[in-house]
Amino acid sequence: MLKKIDHIGIAVTDMDVAIQKYSLLTGAEPSEKETVDAQMVETSFFPVGDVKLELLSGTEKDSPVSRFVEKKGPGIHHICFEVEDLDTTIKTLSAAGLTFIDLASNQGAGGTRVAFLHPKSTGGILFEFAEHPTDMK
Amino acid sequence: MLKKIDHIGIAVTDMDVAIQKYSLLTGAEPSEKETVDAQMVETSFFPVGDVKLELLSGTEKDSPVSRFVEKKGPGIHHICFEVEDLDTTIKTLSAAGLTFIDLASNQGAGGTRVAFLHPKSTGGILFEFAEHPTDMK
Repeated sequence: MLKKIDHIGIAVTDMDVAIQKYSLLTGAEPSEKETVDAQMVETSFFPVGDVKLELLSGTEKDSPVSRFVEKKGPGIHHICFEVEDLDTTIKTLSAAGLTFIDLASNQGAGGTRVAFLHPKSTGGILFEFAEHPTDMK
Repeated sequence: MLKKIDHIGIAVTDMDVAIQKYSLLTGAEPSEKETVDAQMVETSFFPVGDVKLELLSGTEKDSPVSRFVEKKGPGIHHICFEVEDLDTTIKTLSAAGLTFIDLASNQGAGGTRVAFLHPKSTGGILFEFAEHPTDMK
């Protein structure tokens, strides 16, 4: 069901400072910054092997990422799994008793369709599932 | 310098409950539990693609993982990069102004040699670097 780890989301306080640090740390070039309105975040990706580090900065004071940083400080925010079929993943894990967060919008970065498991289902960890446009039927 | 993401460390409160949840979530078989004395943790790994999720549970009340859980709750604890040469990585990043945590012991899980960057160097994120036995010269 899970193809691979797609990316690891990292909540930062200052996107431009973070981009400098992660360029140094990874030796990689970041992607262009992209704002994802549905998640109220600005993002930038650094590739490491075939996984990406996704820097995240909230665009609104009450966005989930801004609230995470206010509560816990900057830190690792979520893990995203790439899946072949998002709808099947949602059905299978829901049937197994796991709960998804608001499924009304599933717009992710880079044209993906995404869904998030509620951290209450997973012992406090936020997991995202992403279906890439090339995988869509 | 970085070969890939080796694993993502996840701090949990109850290892056996977590193993059940991650078996369901990933559809993968966990590794045998292993205690890493130098880090005061019990670990269990779940493969997802070529990256592993490392469940971590503190074995001592004042171990770094136990303190993380007490302060922030269970959550994603660190990201580990696989490197070819740990000593070169330490030298290069130290020269660039990043600070490593206590380099006195570098015993990791599965016979790896490891080092951790101080979160103060990285905007609050704990990064580990691991050299696998097969990579050692």
